[in-house]
Amino acid sequence: MELLIMIDACRRASAKNITAVIPYFGYARADRKMQGRESIAAKLVANLITEAGAHRVLSCDLHSDQSIGYFDIPIDHVHDQPVILDYLASKTIFPSDVVVVSPDVGGVARARAFDKKLSDAPLAIIDKRRQGYNQAEVVNLIGDVRGKVAIMVDDMIDTAGTISKGAKLLHKEGARAVYACSTHAVFSLPALERLSSGFFQEVIITNTVPVVQHQSFP
Amino acid sequence: MELLIMIDACRRASAKNITAVIPYFGYARADRKMQGRESIAAKLVANLITEAGAHRVLSCDLHSDQSIGYFDIPIDHVHDQPVILDYLASKTIFPSDVVVVSPDVGGVARARAFDKKLSDAPLAIIDKRRQGYNQAEVVNLIGDVRGKVAIMVDDMIDTAGTISKGAKLLHKEGARAVYACSTHAVFSLPALERLSSGFFQEVIITNTVPVVQHQSFP
Amino acid sequence: MELLIMIDACRRASAKNITAVIPYFGYARADRKMQGRESIAAKLVANLITEAGAHRVLSCDLHSDQSIGYFDIPIDHVHDQPVILDYLASKTIFPSDVVVVSPDVGGVARARAFDKKLSDAPLAIIDKRRQGYNQAEVVNLIGDVRGKVAIMVDDMIDTAGTISKGAKLLHKEGARAVYACSTHAVFSLPALERLSSGFFQEVIITNTVPVVQHQSFP
Amino acid sequence: MELLIMIDACRRASAKNITAVIPYFGYARADRKMQGRESIAAKLVANLITEAGAHRVLSCDLHSDQSIGYFDIPIDHVHDQPVILDYLASKTIFPSDVVVVSPDVGGVARARAFDKKLSDAPLAIIDKRRQGYNQAEVVNLIGDVRGKVAIMVDDMIDTAGTISKGAKLLHKEGARAVYACSTHAVFSLPALERLSSGFFQEVIITNTVPVVQHQSFP
Amino acid sequence: MELLIMIDACRRASAKNITAVIPYFGYARADRKMQGRESIAAKLVANLITEAGAHRVLSCDLHSDQSIGYFDIPIDHVHDQPVILDYLASKTIFPSDVVVVSPDVGGVARARAFDKKLSDAPLAIIDKRRQGYNQAEVVNLIGDVRGKVAIMVDDMIDTAGTISKGAKLLHKEGARAVYACSTHAVFSLPALERLSSGFFQEVIITNTVPVVQHQSFP
Amino acid sequence: MELLIMIDACRRASAKNITAVIPYFGYARADRKMQGRESIAAKLVANLITEAGAHRVLSCDLHSDQSIGYFDIPIDHVHDQPVILDYLASKTIFPSDVVVVSPDVGGVARARAFDKKLSDAPLAIIDKRRQGYNQAEVVNLIGDVRGKVAIMVDDMIDTAGTISKGAKLLHKEGARAVYACSTHAVFSLPALERLSSGFFQEVIITNTVPVVQHQSFP
Repeated sequence: MELLIMIDACRRASAKNITAVIPYFGYARADRKMQGRESIAAKLVANLITEAGAHRVLSCDLHSDQSIGYFDIPIDHVHDQPVILDYLASKTIFPSDVVVVSPDVGGVARARAFDKKLSDAPLAIIDKRRQGYNQAEVVNLIGDVRGKVAIMVDDMIDTAGTISKGAKLLHKEGARAVYACSTHAVFSLPALERLSSGFFQEVIITNTVPVVQHQSFP
Repeated sequence: MELLIMIDACRRASAKNITAVIPYFGYARADRKMQGRESIAAKLVANLITEAGAHRVLSCDLHSDQSIGYFDIPIDHVHDQPVILDYLASKTIFPSDVVVVSPDVGGVARARAFDKKLSDAPLAIIDKRRQGYNQAEVVNLIGDVRGKVAIMVDDMIDTAGTISKGAKLLHKEGARAVYACSTHAVFSLPALERLSSGFFQEVIITNTVPVVQHQSFP
Repeated sequence: MELLIMIDACRRASAKNITAVIPYFGYARADRKMQGRESIAAKLVANLITEAGAHRVLSCDLHSDQSIGYFDIPIDHVHDQPVILDYLASKTIFPSDVVVVSPDVGGVARARAFDKKLSDAPLAIIDKRRQGYNQAEVVNLIGDVRGKVAIMVDDMIDTAGTISKGAKLLHKEGARAVYACSTHAVFSLPALERLSSGFFQEVIITNTVPVVQHQSFP
Repeated sequence: MELLIMIDACRRASAKNITAVIPYFGYARADRKMQGRESIAAKLVANLITEAGAHRVLSCDLHSDQSIGYFDIPIDHVHDQPVILDYLASKTIFPSDVVVVSPDVGGVARARAFDKKLSDAPLAIIDKRRQGYNQAEVVNLIGDVRGKVAIMVDDMIDTAGTISKGAKLLHKEGARAVYACSTHAVFSLPALERLSSGFFQEVIITNTVPVVQHQSFP
Repeated sequence: MELLIMIDACRRASAKNITAVIPYFGYARADRKMQGRESIAAKLVANLITEAGAHRVLSCDLHSDQSIGYFDIPIDHVHDQPVILDYLASKTIFPSDVVVVSPDVGGVARARAFDKKLSDAPLAIIDKRRQGYNQAEVVNLIGDVRGKVAIMVDDMIDTAGTISKGAKLLHKEGARAVYACSTHAVFSLPALERLSSGFFQEVIITNTVPVVQHQSFP
Repeated sequence: MELLIMIDACRRASAKNITAVIPYFGYARADRKMQGRESIAAKLVANLITEAGAHRVLSCDLHSDQSIGYFDIPIDHVHDQPVILDYLASKTIFPSDVVVVSPDVGGVARARAFDKKLSDAPLAIIDKRRQGYNQAEVVNLIGDVRGKVAIMVDDMIDTAGTISKGAKLLHKEGARAVYACSTHAVFSLPALERLSSGFFQEVIITNTVPVVQHQSFP
């Protein structure tokens, strides 16, 4: 809402061009109707930003590429993968040892795009399923990680539930080490606790969300 | 923002009519440009509510009547004065003893409207002025309250600064008792402390803003 | 309507920027709904000007500051008070003799703003009230004008009914002289007759409305 | 403008359906750009009526059929020809004697449509041309009217210049009698004088424009 | 639709100005409601082009001047008559021999405009009428073409039905030669066959519609 | 475009409710910007349908769930999976033999949703990658299909390139039989030839796209 009021102030002050810079477009997660009677907040907020008077938007790693279309004003969609890939390149990991892992079935395309930049490492997918009503969720691995360095790729880490459950499975399936890479570090509780659980070699994030407390791992 | 998302959900669920009920339209206070480069949040929010898909608005005692025009959809503007007047009527105050007081020059029209319903009691106005740069603010009374029961009328009590300073002045100028009437009880700090200072016979509010802690006076 | 057609012609002729200069925005008076089933012409006309294709508006002393928000395009809101204050400064009136008078309760804030520029002179308000159905209107003075030079401030003089009734009261209450200041001189009948009645020392106006006949007073 | 304010009042009073009834849509005449830098008032006014909040329009004999498209809201376009044809049928004119005349080249299609209802009488056209700069305008007749009853058909009679010049020519070319039929009787000066010149057997109009003074001919 | 997608691509690529160049605006033919329950495709397409993001349109010889008003964005309406007139001037036709012919009653104004540039040659009109239900259509000539060079003027030639029937009539009525001039050469079947029928001295068109097969006449 | 013209005709005929039924929303495939300077046709067409006047949309299996948000009018998004699942249930396939296969990384979420309805069969993914510039594309299988009945799930079959390459791989990896399921059967050339290649046990489609030629397999 503060953003909308700032855009309005710019418009009333006759700004020639108003670009809304939104490093982490949080509402982008709510980008479809899962069930009837839901809002599509990502589309709504895109409409409101346009209505308030912005001429252009700059954002990083939206939850889905389709969200770009929610805006009718031009949008610069920046990917943070190169920054993360540069950092990974500084590590001494043999390319042939790497396997890229998508933490859920919805993120396979994102993991694949990441993978393409990483000398086409093999891909694995973690597939979460509930075996029955009121039964515990079971995670399965599709693909092979034995003896490899697993690099999990997601667009955001919120409570870190999915990613920490995934890391545990990867270790069980024989991964030598697990790295987690994510653009947006929302870090709601109990994210820090989960990420410090020892399953992760390193958690690599960008600063699209202000990082108040630095992550460090033994 | 929650309101906007709820409206969007209603629209996508094919609601035939969507009425936004906004007892306290907080942004209504920001209803004009005081200086250059300011936003007019009341207008912006009115636009956003329309854009999100509301067909009708129901609100109480907007900060200015002009704000009604900020909406192009029909708006039901409800006045809470009758409720307050009914309560006042239950008190044993002689009508001839009453003087209606506007706590600042911007609220004279509101006080006058209130007054009209109250057997046309006399009117007094508190006029705040700063005598020079970096000097203390001085409050003046325009009109006469000596020996009367002063009823201060405002649309909202936020920090209660204006109204408590006014009540102090009214006592100094000889008012027998001071009542404060307001539709919206925002009560930011230190409102409760100020209202409990003993200058007020009673503070009469409505529940457009949820009242978590009841006011009581000796 | 001529204005709207001119804006349309500019738009169709590919004007890069269209600024509507509206010294006296007459419809601004109708800026709220007094009763149900009324139009808010000020908002409507603001919408029409935007729809016709204007990019910017320049106007003087709108009836209420809230009307600025009726436009979503940038608006330059010019105040004519400095011009009037300069002229007043050329008169030999002792500042300590001045009292600023609002001709009705709706104009107190405007009078107060004027007052601020005039060495913070005291303020008085004329309070019109009808004592019963079908009874004559009675005017009251709130504040003191005895022996002072009263400067009445309004945004427009239409039939001059309010202002001339006020001037008469001010004289009765002992004002030494009465000046009337107004930005917009609409002067419908019988304004000239009323203003020439001898109650005014001087009537000071600007030329936002073309002045066809000069006012002169003995 | 009064129409627009009435529509706005209806909208703010939550009218379920607002139909603007515009018997004579005067601005429809300005329905195209004759030269650069002109407004298209018909389109502008159609936009404004929609913007003000009308849901539907009812109008009679717009200047061109294309003007219907200027509205995106539904429009009922009523033709007044049946009323005029009924009246003509009450006259004892032999169908074989009739020739339908368009008073200018722009109205041929309208005359032809009228003609179709009138047992397919022959058609004639008056063709106005200026033979050179600063030279008098010359009117030509295309088609034959000798010994016939000429019925001139137009959508509106404003100053009646075109139609009276045409009637004079028709008499010169041997027409036995001249009737003028028009939906909209705007009748600006000197229309009445021209129509009373004796060239017309009868002038048949409808009351889409209030008719203040009845036409009578010897 | 391709045009609309191209405009959308330009808008999303932040084009500063998008001008849609539409030499032949085919939908312009459907520019009015002939009967109830019809679409006005010309208006619809104008709306869609604006909605897609074009800032300006350039088009040639729209079917009616009123269609310009269908756009609220600036439109450059180019006439191709000068090109055709230049070509005609290169022919050795005595101006006094020329008669300009409108192939139907709807095109008289266009023919007249053409005529004005052609030393004000006389005008003739072809008037098509159906004498009864299920009877053959009969074409009539209004005006005189005997011994003249007839120049038929239309905005588009589609199946060439109207124009070839007209040419036949003109020959029967004694025209020495018939030229056909048209901006848009749509040429649906069996246009070429009809135009090659020998009734035309020459068919003069422009290239607003790509001409795949050259017309030649003995 | 025909759809848009039909919507426009409905609107101008005062239809109270206009629902656009679009079984196969072809433009939905172009639902994001793959590279700079591309259009997002799905969003554009959604805007055009709204602009033309539709009140509601009914569509089947859009390419991505996010496309629902491209419409601000209510949309009924129907899934055709139940129809296909019913048909599959009529086959005598042991549930424990089934493996659901996504033909590319972008369709994993869709395959997973299908899978959920199919007694949570295991999932496999076909991962297409190009090993270098100008080198042949290589397809990999992630997951295990040996001895199983593979059911490939996609939303549309266009040229059938991806799906037939996938089927070949599945056979090579030991699948006992391959079924292909798809909502939209676009079937451009050489789809039929590819689907008849013998790799498919059965190809199961719905009739959202009119099926002109029935598929039959030995």
